[in-house]
This record gives sequence, C-alpha cells and structure tokens, in this order.
Amino acid sequence: MRAIFIAVGSEMLDLDRVDSNSIYVARRLREKGILMDMKVVVGDHMDNLSWIVKKACQRAQLVVISGGLGPTEDDITREAVATALKKELLFREEIVADLQERFRRRGLAMPEINARQGFVIEGAEVLSNLVGTAPGLYCDDGNCKVLLLPGPPNELLPVFEAAFEKFIAPAANYHIVSRTFKLTGISESEADSRCADVYRKYRNPVTTILASPGMIELHFLGRSKNSDEEARRLTDELAEKVRERLKDFIFAEGDVTLPEVVVAMLRERGLTLAVAESCTGGGLGNLVTSVPGSSQVFLGGVIAYANSVKTGVLGVREETLKRHGAVSEATAAEMAAGARRLTGAAIGLAITGIAGPGGDNPKKPVGLVHMSLSAGDGVRSLRQIFSGSREVIKLRSEFYALNLVREYLNQLPVDGVR
Amino acid sequence: MRAIFIAVGSEMLDLDRVDSNSIYVARRLREKGILMDMKVVVGDHMDNLSWIVKKACQRAQLVVISGGLGPTEDDITREAVATALKKELLFREEIVADLQERFRRRGLAMPEINARQGFVIEGAEVLSNLVGTAPGLYCDDGNCKVLLLPGPPNELLPVFEAAFEKFIAPAANYHIVSRTFKLTGISESEADSRCADVYRKYRNPVTTILASPGMIELHFLGRSKNSDEEARRLTDELAEKVRERLKDFIFAEGDVTLPEVVVAMLRERGLTLAVAESCTGGGLGNLVTSVPGSSQVFLGGVIAYANSVKTGVLGVREETLKRHGAVSEATAAEMAAGARRLTGAAIGLAITGIAGPGGDNPKKPVGLVHMSLSAGDGVRSLRQIFSGSREVIKLRSEFYALNLVREYLNQLPVDGVR
Repeated sequence: MRAIFIAVGSEMLDLDRVDSNSIYVARRLREKGILMDMKVVVGDHMDNLSWIVKKACQRAQLVVISGGLGPTEDDITREAVATALKKELLFREEIVADLQERFRRRGLAMPEINARQGFVIEGAEVLSNLVGTAPGLYCDDGNCKVLLLPGPPNELLPVFEAAFEKFIAPAANYHIVSRTFKLTGISESEADSRCADVYRKYRNPVTTILASPGMIELHFLGRSKNSDEEARRLTDELAEKVRERLKDFIFAEGDVTLPEVVVAMLRERGLTLAVAESCTGGGLGNLVTSVPGSSQVFLGGVIAYANSVKTGVLGVREETLKRHGAVSEATAAEMAAGARRLTGAAIGLAITGIAGPGGDNPKKPVGLVHMSLSAGDGVRSLRQIFSGSREVIKLRSEFYALNLVREYLNQLPVDGVR
Repeated sequence: MRAIFIAVGSEMLDLDRVDSNSIYVARRLREKGILMDMKVVVGDHMDNLSWIVKKACQRAQLVVISGGLGPTEDDITREAVATALKKELLFREEIVADLQERFRRRGLAMPEINARQGFVIEGAEVLSNLVGTAPGLYCDDGNCKVLLLPGPPNELLPVFEAAFEKFIAPAANYHIVSRTFKLTGISESEADSRCADVYRKYRNPVTTILASPGMIELHFLGRSKNSDEEARRLTDELAEKVRERLKDFIFAEGDVTLPEVVVAMLRERGLTLAVAESCTGGGLGNLVTSVPGSSQVFLGGVIAYANSVKTGVLGVREETLKRHGAVSEATAAEMAAGARRLTGAAIGLAITGIAGPGGDNPKKPVGLVHMSLSAGDGVRSLRQIFSGSREVIKLRSEFYALNLVREYLNQLPVDGVR
C-alpha cells in the first residue's frame, strides 16, 4: 500500500513550522510497511485542495489529510474532499447535538458557527475527537482509503490511532526494518564510491545517503511480506557488508551525534578535554557543550583568533609563527599543547585554518585546515582542504577534529573510572 | 503567477527536518507577488517524482524543485524532470571539465561518479553553483517555468537568487515592497503588545512577526497594482509608526545579523573585542566569527567551562566563586575583566549561566544567565532568566550579550579610525 499525506493550512507555506504530524504518521505507517510516497502542504484554498486530493486518490491507496476541519470560514477540507470524490455533504444532527452537550457541560453555549462541523462526506465513518470539536472522517471507495484528521497534533494523534487500529493496520501487508550508520572523516562521494557496488545490487533494502557538513548518514530500509525477522535479516545482511567497507568512519548507529559519542567515550575513560581554536572561533567548544553533562569532561580552552593570543595566552612560539605561519602543523601542535598545559586537561585539541572568504593565497588556499591532538603519549595531526562556505568549512573542521579524539580514544581501554 | 515547490529527498518524509528551502523561496516569491499554492515533499523515486512534476506543470506557472542533483545513484531529479517534460538529457562536456578543474585546484581527482552532473535537460539554461558540484537548471516551455536547484541550503540560495533575478522577478506582475526590522533584547509577546494596536489596523501592508532564539523579526509587506511608489508609501507609513514604539530594540533593517552589526560598529570605532564564556562554551565566539573579516576586531578569548579555568586562566578570585557562585554578577564581571587583561582587547564580554537541563537549584534556576561587559570606562551587567532548551538558552545569552556591546558602542562616537 502506498500513501500520500496532505497538510492543509496557508500558514505552513511561509512560516518556519515543523510539520510534526506527517513525520508521526509516516513513522507509524512504515511500521506496517506502508510507505509514504509524498507529502503535500496546501493553503486553505478550495480549488487547490480538491485538485490535489483528486490527483492523490488516483495515485495512492491511502490519502491522509490533516487540518481544515474547524468551524471557521477558512476550514474547507470537508467540502474540498467531497468535491474531489464526487460525493455529497450530508448534515448529521447527532454530531451537533453531541457538540452542544459538550459545550453545555463546560457551562457554555455552542457558537452558531460550530454547526458546520455537523457536515459529513456521504458514506464516511465519523471518528470522534474527544480533545477538540472537529471529528475525523474516514471513507473508502474501494480504490483509495481517505482519512481526514484534525490539524492540532494533540487532536490528530488519538483520532489517527483509532483509525489506524480499525481500518489501516488490518489492510497492511509489509514488515519493515530500518538501520542508520553515521560517518565522519570521509566525503559523501568517497563513501559512495567505496560501497556503491555493494548496495546497488539490492533493491530491497533501499539505501539512502545523506550528507551534512562534516557528517554523512547511510540509511537502509528493508521490507518483507512475511515477517519482521525476514525484513531484519535482509537489512542486516546489507548493512553488515557496507559496514565492512566503511567501519573506520562509522561513529554511531542510529540517533546519536558525534559530540555525544566523544563526550561518552571521554567519560568512560575518565579523561578531560580542552580546546584551542583559531578559525573555528569557539565553534568546537560550542559543539562539545551542546551535549548535556559535557561539563564532566570538558574544561574549556582558548579562542586564539589573533596571533597575539596564540603566543600570549597559549604559548605558541613567535619563531613557529614566523617560520611556518599561523596555519601550519607546527602551530596547531603548539596550540594543542598550550590548551593542555593551561587547563590541565588530559587531551588538548587545536584547529587553525583559513575559513575564507578572505585570506586566500597561493600556498595556503581557503579551506586549508590543520588540526592537532595533544595527549600524554604524543601528538596526532591532520591536514585537510575543505570546500564550502565559511560556515561549512568551520563545521567540517570541528567534526574532523572531534573525529581525531574519537580515533585516539578508540585505542585506549575503557577503565571504568569516571 | 502561481508557484508549486517540490522538495526531493526520501529523508524529508520521515525524518524531523525543517525544510528551510521552501520557506525561503516562498518569501522571496511573495516579495514579487508570486504566491506559493502548494509545496510537495517526494522521495527519491523516479515514477513519483516525474508524476508530480508533470501534474505541477499542468497546474502552476512556476515549479521550483530542490534536491536530487548530486552525483550519486539516488540523485534522479534531472532524469525525472526530463521524463515529465518529455525532453532528452544531453551531456555537456564543459560542465565536467569545469568540475575536474575545481577538484584539481584542491589537489584532488574528480570521482568518476561526478560525471553524471554533466547531463542537462534539453533546452535548459545551466545555473552555475560555486559552492557545491551540482549546477542548477532552468527551463521554460512557454506555459510553465521550471527551476531545478541543489538541495543544501547554502548551495540553493545563491543559485536561486541568480535565477530569480534573471528569469522570475522580471515576469512578476504585482508591485510589492517589503521592509524588515530585526530586534533583540525583547521577547516576542512584549514586542507584539507594544505595537499590535498599530499594525492590526492595516490589511495592507501585511505584518508578520517571526521569533527565533534571541531575535525577533517584524516583516511588513505592502502591495499595489499601480506602482512601486504606492507600495512603498503604504509600507513606510506603517513601518515608521511601529519603529516609533520599538526603536530601542531594533538593531537592523533588512538582511543583516546582530554579529555583523556589532563587528561593523567595532570597526568604525577602531575597537577590539575579547570574550570569556562559561555556559555558552564557545558559542559567542562562534557567532562573532561567523562574520567574514571579524578578525580585524575580534581577538579571541577564553572558554572557561570549568571553574579551574575561570580562576587559573581568567584570574577570577576563589573568594568571588565561594561567596557569589560561578553564576553571579561578580563572577561575570571578573571574567570580562580577565578576558580584557589577558588579550589586551578594548572590550571584554563575559557570559556565565545555567543552560540546563542539569544544574537547577532553588536560588538559581535553569535559564539564569549573567552577562558582563568590561571596558576602559567601567562595567555593564545584565541578568536574565531565559526559557527554552539548552541550545535556545545558549543562543539567547549570546544575542543579549552582543546587544550589550551594541548599546555600549552606540554611545561612543564613530572616530573614523580604521
């Protein structure tokens, strides 16, 4: 079964709102193997809404519509869906009687306007809404199931769940299992070329690669007509083959961030971290401290944007700056050592680079970044040339630097000391 | 002209991502009187995508499509749109040559796979993308304009703007003038209650209030069928009335950020800035250094997450911590003074607070933040209790702290130095 979700409401077209309804419905449907092909946001506009509902019903076997069931003039979903399905709207006295009773119990008279909510699409089942005034509706013309839900998430949820249980889940016919790998320290195209020959052989599971600055996600989605077990076996088979190719770069499975992984690893080993940041200007510390509880392992550090701070606070030698420049392996190493010495942290982590757009020169292009990790047993360095905007170069540097810490900690035993 | 936006990417169907692209495009189109009727999110699936593109082109005069232009197997937008429009895909050698050159400049060989990005829809204009590898495409078959844009927001923006300027804006038929005030140091509900009686009298211009952590935007959008002048007169009339009520909090008009304003003000006055950050963990420095050229006025500072760094590096007195605690006006003041002394900056700016979710206590709740500005002529302090998540509390603190600098610099003459 394939589904299309339609969210109704002009405000969603140009304001910055997360449509949590469609996310929730998509996840619940997927648990029964029903894939959401598409979701649509449409304004409170009769022609547009009935047009898209009609097209969606020709395409999908399930169309879920949220919003526009309220009592006001701009709530047009009932009429628009009736038009799309070529059905009448019938007035049901008992719905209005029920609403009147609910208002009465709160000591209020039902506003005239709520009588509109008594109209029901011919042949539809009414799904009662105990939270708000707008009942849901469900119709099935044999080709397509159409589910109308109230828009506010706290009303949508219980109405959807009731319809899901009664009408949708029994008609579903797939089992689905998904897995996600998160990678860093590798580019999207490099990751793809390392494993494309493996995942391209499979149409089931489906593989998706997502890139964001400094990080890549690989999603696998396996399905089976028979059982959860089969879906899991298919998904695991592919995922493990891909892991074999990319294991050095995978920092997590599922919903965990790289800073969370690094903070947890530091905690498990009883080690502390301090930073020395030039081009990232505090972004690395900001990323680490996005993790609640990071104060247990993160001491702080120095933002050494000006060279005078590199020398005066971190103790980078004038000679090093003169001979190698501020963006160099030698400077990064002295910055990392300085952060460690100054704060007493077990690990010092430094970044120095050219985030652009200014500062370009033939020997040191925009995007050149040196990262360095200083610990009791020595120094590790990494040099990269990142592409992208100033913001993206900063973020990539922060992720690659944190990955240096992850790689370093991976080699150390978990000693259980907090 | 009516528009439909299509975002391509399976991940947007069931992951919790805000589709900022469609919001941005809707706003820009609206400035030219082009209304977005609908937006669609569709997975990386050839049949579904070409189906919806075909239907959208029958319905709208402008179809904007984002995503799926990358080099990998699941990037299918070029093929799907060509199928929908019944056009061929043609290979353009020069696109690939250009990509190869760009990889070469970074010392890399272009991966084989990127050659796919040389395919172009017959008759389409190629829109160059200087940030990423995927060029945009624009076609117009007389009935409908179709614009293909790369998905990552930092790539979409410049490609969209170029196409908007060249192809879309000239075809629009309303006169629209918009103005935007950006405010900080005031909450959304406080700003609204100070000016609602003014703007509610007007249906044209339309007023929209948008809040993000630490900042509020007020948009005014006036329209006229006759002339730009009329639209401007309407917009200015309302905007000036609102400005009268809120002038102390407006830090910019239009597309300028608070860090940009502060960096420009510092530069105009020939002054330098250093930071001392506890709960923001580097976020303040990160925000300041998001501005290109900030290195001319920003020296750096200290991330004093642990108390040992506050005393050991910034010189906060043990006694101050003992008597007043790490989250106090006294500690903030000594941190700001320490940052100034350590770096030699004209202005030291400090933040210390409880970002949560841990650290709550009866006297000092989560969200309590002390900010302090230290300069040659004294100290300014600000105490706030912010609501929101850890991330939001950090961001609000950073904006309010920067606003302290703005208010301080506002009183100083622009001396023309530097």
